[in-house]
Amino acid sequence: MHASNRPLILVTNDDGIYARGIRSLVEAVRDLGDVLVVAPDKPQSGMGHAVTIHGVLRLERVDYGEGIQAYSCSGTPVDCVKLAIYQVLKRKPDLLVSGINHGANSSINVIYSGTMSAAIEGAIEGIPSAGFSLLDHSIDADFEASIGVARKVVTRMLSDQHLPEGLCLNVNIPRARPEDLRGIRVCRQAKARWEDAFDHRTDPTGKSYYWLTGEFKSLDTGEETDEYALHHQYVSVVPVHFDLTAYHTISHLQQWEL
Amino acid sequence: MHASNRPLILVTNDDGIYARGIRSLVEAVRDLGDVLVVAPDKPQSGMGHAVTIHGVLRLERVDYGEGIQAYSCSGTPVDCVKLAIYQVLKRKPDLLVSGINHGANSSINVIYSGTMSAAIEGAIEGIPSAGFSLLDHSIDADFEASIGVARKVVTRMLSDQHLPEGLCLNVNIPRARPEDLRGIRVCRQAKARWEDAFDHRTDPTGKSYYWLTGEFKSLDTGEETDEYALHHQYVSVVPVHFDLTAYHTISHLQQWEL
Repeated sequence: MHASNRPLILVTNDDGIYARGIRSLVEAVRDLGDVLVVAPDKPQSGMGHAVTIHGVLRLERVDYGEGIQAYSCSGTPVDCVKLAIYQVLKRKPDLLVSGINHGANSSINVIYSGTMSAAIEGAIEGIPSAGFSLLDHSIDADFEASIGVARKVVTRMLSDQHLPEGLCLNVNIPRARPEDLRGIRVCRQAKARWEDAFDHRTDPTGKSYYWLTGEFKSLDTGEETDEYALHHQYVSVVPVHFDLTAYHTISHLQQWEL
Repeated sequence: MHASNRPLILVTNDDGIYARGIRSLVEAVRDLGDVLVVAPDKPQSGMGHAVTIHGVLRLERVDYGEGIQAYSCSGTPVDCVKLAIYQVLKRKPDLLVSGINHGANSSINVIYSGTMSAAIEGAIEGIPSAGFSLLDHSIDADFEASIGVARKVVTRMLSDQHLPEGLCLNVNIPRARPEDLRGIRVCRQAKARWEDAFDHRTDPTGKSYYWLTGEFKSLDTGEETDEYALHHQYVSVVPVHFDLTAYHTISHLQQWEL
């Protein structure tokens, strides 16, 4: 499909191909390259790095307006990335962007996030990738500031001749007007976890069921964290990698003499 | 439920509560503590760190034999861990074990694996956790060696008074008789990725669908990796963490002056 000299940009998300966030992301990048959209046909929030291995996948051409090739996919965000590369394009795009997510993916949320898992899958494939998330779940969220941020970050990624290998950025944008953002900060992931609670209900036949609810608990007061930046009206940029080895514990474990 | 002085061990998996692997893991640990099983009611391989946020969860008591409290859950492996802690126990177990998975979770597979995501969720909760995987997908796989390994690792975890915080182990066991294992090695995660391919088929109504297939590509020849250990008939133990920050790229990104 791709014969131009412009960079080929793959766009995906986890809120589904009809979400306002992905439309905003396409707007942010469409004049920076040729755009292919492959995104879930329905919301896939919280899907983490799930892939569909026990079922089949569907891929449907979708009308996305002039000059944009777009497909909806029945699978997860990571499925979308795999289908885009290995079925639609049969090559790797030059850049992958995911989002703009409706809601934060800072701190430990990176690990549950379909938006970020799509970006991480891109990085595993060696494609410079970034996920964008706006700290606003509301239906009428204002994406203007996040469009500007996405444009700025993508422009920088495309112009950097010495990008680190496997680069993947987790970009979170506070809920604010563009003029009220204080800047963009490179951060580390804050330590945090969810204090979960289950809302226990009874269905009409008398059987129990549960809704997952919970409260986000920050366990970190570091000023170099994404949480700190976001609370102070800065955009946070956390570089993310997929080598999960906890190198700092290896020497302790070696003493175990298993 | 728990009034004894013995450690409380939570057991889960991603192949489902009726898989042979989880029965083997229960056998491995049942005399090391009091055991609670909360595991998916159906196979959940490849679910990564997915959580159920747009649907409800069911939890059903299951008969698992004398002295074992067990529940099947309609959700993902990570849902099982959350339900076990916040709904069934209303406290944290002393240890979490996941598996024994039918198939490898070494190298990049850690990121797609429901088995390992359950263990990582335990670690996020501050519970020492380990996932166990046997490099054998066959229905009549021999779990004897992996039962011995799981017992040894869990015994060591329970007796170590100075366990590193957030410890999570990714343990993979070669397909071998116990006497043919050459030992247990602490390793780092090998760099690798899947070269995917989609098997494109046509359904009876003439519409396309796809099966994900692929080939594992090792990109790493390091002798300190899990792949190297497994190829040389060693059990691999990789400590895993959930701080995904790519610290080594922060200084590069700070030069961007965004």
